[in-house]
Amino acid sequence: MVTADNIQKTPQQAKFDLRAYLKERQNLCEAALDKSISIRYPEKIYEAMRYSLMAGGKRLRPILCLAACEMMGGTIDMAMATACAVEMIHTMSLIHDDLPAMDNDDYRRGKLTNHKVYGDDIAILAGDGLLAYAFEYVVTQTHNVPLERVVQVIARLGHATGATGLVGGQVLDLESEGKTDISVETLNFIHRHKTGALLEACVVCGGIIAGASSTEVQRLSHYSENIGLAFQIIDDILDITQTDEQLGKTAGKDLQAQKVTYPSLWGLEESKQKAQQLVEEACAELESFGDKALPLKELAHFITSRKN
Amino acid sequence: MVTADNIQKTPQQAKFDLRAYLKERQNLCEAALDKSISIRYPEKIYEAMRYSLMAGGKRLRPILCLAACEMMGGTIDMAMATACAVEMIHTMSLIHDDLPAMDNDDYRRGKLTNHKVYGDDIAILAGDGLLAYAFEYVVTQTHNVPLERVVQVIARLGHATGATGLVGGQVLDLESEGKTDISVETLNFIHRHKTGALLEACVVCGGIIAGASSTEVQRLSHYSENIGLAFQIIDDILDITQTDEQLGKTAGKDLQAQKVTYPSLWGLEESKQKAQQLVEEACAELESFGDKALPLKELAHFITSRKN
Repeated sequence: MVTADNIQKTPQQAKFDLRAYLKERQNLCEAALDKSISIRYPEKIYEAMRYSLMAGGKRLRPILCLAACEMMGGTIDMAMATACAVEMIHTMSLIHDDLPAMDNDDYRRGKLTNHKVYGDDIAILAGDGLLAYAFEYVVTQTHNVPLERVVQVIARLGHATGATGLVGGQVLDLESEGKTDISVETLNFIHRHKTGALLEACVVCGGIIAGASSTEVQRLSHYSENIGLAFQIIDDILDITQTDEQLGKTAGKDLQAQKVTYPSLWGLEESKQKAQQLVEEACAELESFGDKALPLKELAHFITSRKN
Repeated sequence: MVTADNIQKTPQQAKFDLRAYLKERQNLCEAALDKSISIRYPEKIYEAMRYSLMAGGKRLRPILCLAACEMMGGTIDMAMATACAVEMIHTMSLIHDDLPAMDNDDYRRGKLTNHKVYGDDIAILAGDGLLAYAFEYVVTQTHNVPLERVVQVIARLGHATGATGLVGGQVLDLESEGKTDISVETLNFIHRHKTGALLEACVVCGGIIAGASSTEVQRLSHYSENIGLAFQIIDDILDITQTDEQLGKTAGKDLQAQKVTYPSLWGLEESKQKAQQLVEEACAELESFGDKALPLKELAHFITSRKN
């Protein structure tokens, strides 16, 4: 299997310690997320929001956001509020997706899902609360960034979250369930919206905060489109090849729900190759940024090597 | 019964035709809301969002927003995007509140609720879609307003919607259901958050868009706090005194759910008097704005005279 450790590396890449980088960034994000919501009256809703927001995970989205901002010459401080906001939005989508009315999942990241702990009503409200707070958080906690950029971030996050983004992707995903004649185009639409839109927003917003030009935003957008699709292909593969325990959630759900997935269309081997190819195309988009692009390139490779 | 027609009027008030004003503003808001969301692929989610957004209602929130903006010297055009956004947020809260996991209502404004038409899954997503779009809409569709004001609007809307606002109020409301020992303080907290916070945001954001000073924002905030509570008292009264048909939704729900309401604490007559008193205090806050405050004052009186 291709892993982050055995792929061909350039001399610069060899110097870059991805594991240490991820660890450091994860810690920064955990601390910032932990500080973002404190518990007050009525406690239950803040506890429910924190329960899912602090349930671990790789924090890939906020890390991508920070990395894009730094690549474009910005600082971690400038992008941290937006990085937290994308994780809040992502968490909202997980809480709502897990509801009995949707995917009906009992476990997520090895823990009971939000509604299994707090009830369906509170889970719906915890998602709503996180979504509203994400936007408030960006505008109240972003400092030393021109307002023109801040409002662009709000626009991009809204667009990536609503019917034009992950909500639209989720709708088509629900409609496609049980259908065995889903085309690659439909599958691509689902994932470009359900997973891709928010990943793109992470990277692009990170760049915008640092003052990326429209050409640079284009490059960031292509990079993230490619890694978004690669990410989803790997997700589909893991659902087939891993156990519940390895995944931290119910495995084999796609097969059980008769979902059309990339492996079901292309087979496992071709799916892996396709993911690898998408990652290489993603990295090619960043050539002009030189060594500064190393973290984003390594993150792209990491995505295809992950095991959960 | 006190109605908008038989209350004591000053000469200026006598010249103000509230009915014509409401009709004109309602039409403006309907047209703006209709334009705000067009149907595209995947159609079902846009249809579900439009179904509830265009289901009528008094459009009191957007009208308050426009009125506050005009009182402070701004224009309808400046505030219309925010006016639409508050109605999107309000609609999201209705869709989610009506879900079986929450209040389990089949009818709203005389029409089937969103989940009865589109299913629980799509209803959850339609709410999420409207909420995300509200923020996007404010930043992309507000023109000729300084960005300092636009970001303040985003912060206020987020704060009024999340756990610090209507979500928090709804959580405490759910927790209080079936309890017969709810205090006036708890009831006030519920309504200040569940209904009051968004009403306040409408009025205050309208003012902010027009450049209101912090003292003026304070006055607008007090005005709307009072009418928010009056609005809720009237809502409780109507739930007892009106039929399903008059309300356009299931009547008597509060009694059935053994909810503590203002009439259950104070009785009907005292509740009516209290609502009237709150409206008078609300109007007193606007004295310094002279004749320009007439629409907001008349809207306050209208709230206590409504029959559905």
